[in-house]
Amino acid sequence: MPGPIEFYFDFSSPYGYIASTLIDDLGGRVGREVRWKPFLLGPVFKANGQAPLVDVPMKGDYSKRDFDRTARYHGVPFSLPAKFPIGAIAALRSFYWIDDRDAAKAKAFAQAVYKAYFADGVDITDAAQVLAIAQRLGIDGTALSAALNDQAVKDRAKQEVDAIIAKGAFGSPFFIVDGEPFWGNDRLPMLEDWVRRGGW
Amino acid sequence: MPGPIEFYFDFSSPYGYIASTLIDDLGGRVGREVRWKPFLLGPVFKANGQAPLVDVPMKGDYSKRDFDRTARYHGVPFSLPAKFPIGAIAALRSFYWIDDRDAAKAKAFAQAVYKAYFADGVDITDAAQVLAIAQRLGIDGTALSAALNDQAVKDRAKQEVDAIIAKGAFGSPFFIVDGEPFWGNDRLPMLEDWVRRGGW
Repeated sequence: MPGPIEFYFDFSSPYGYIASTLIDDLGGRVGREVRWKPFLLGPVFKANGQAPLVDVPMKGDYSKRDFDRTARYHGVPFSLPAKFPIGAIAALRSFYWIDDRDAAKAKAFAQAVYKAYFADGVDITDAAQVLAIAQRLGIDGTALSAALNDQAVKDRAKQEVDAIIAKGAFGSPFFIVDGEPFWGNDRLPMLEDWVRRGGW
Repeated sequence: MPGPIEFYFDFSSPYGYIASTLIDDLGGRVGREVRWKPFLLGPVFKANGQAPLVDVPMKGDYSKRDFDRTARYHGVPFSLPAKFPIGAIAALRSFYWIDDRDAAKAKAFAQAVYKAYFADGVDITDAAQVLAIAQRLGIDGTALSAALNDQAVKDRAKQEVDAIIAKGAFGSPFFIVDGEPFWGNDRLPMLEDWVRRGGW
């Protein structure tokens, strides 16, 4: 059986959000499972001495325009959040805790978090908001709330982030399929062609 | 008559080279003239505190892989030059000197310079090599050689670079059409759709 498409994303990434609305359809077209894995760009940018995109001169203004335009191009509701970029720690830890229990629900949770943050203006740095999103999906809020304060859960999330960065992911979205890395939702047509043709 | 597609590129940019093989066909499909204008990323990166792509940790290795892969994807011959990135000053000044005399020839010159550097391994930081490329296109080598030492020609090229950066170009390739900026050859499908639909 062919391997999955690994989909790495930061909950604070507009392009990751847009990719999240496209990647499962792509996986379906090429007959590959998509494995969703959130991580954090903060440690990458710190290690590489990079600034967040919107803080880079010239690039910042362009990027804001391009976020909006790209979302409209793909028909995805989008509004740049007032608090942006963020470190989406509660959402990250929640994801892996849910994922250990129900992978399909973890994906639904990630989609709901993205929509809340980028379409509905919800402040996902607020753990209470993250819990509310989880509860609306039928996840046990009391258990998740306790988990967010559990060192083992924190460590689990950190190990995932470290492992993803060790694989070479330095941006969001980042994809790996059959060992081949692709950065950016604008590489999706290339990724699709790569999978269909087995490289070129 | 609808305005042109402005195509800004650095002779040292692999993605600019790849875009140069695609943009005229795109212009033809949407009935727009393409205005080719080389500039330099060096001053932009210096002003913004950015490093060249290949020198950024993690991103550098990925980029080298992606240059090759993207070229193969588009069927464009490509080999990363031994000396890379470079400041392609002689090619830049030559371009604008030729452009003042014969715009079609300037475009042919730019195409030949890109091919020499990225496909044939020619060191285009060597003014003698740039002159040889021009002469093969029937351009007067003696006059061009003299022009490269002419302060007015140097100033002319610098003014073009400054004007392009003032328009917001911070990467290569960079396109502006109907006032809308697009960065990267991966934005070409979006640019084409934008022109066809008059924005969205």
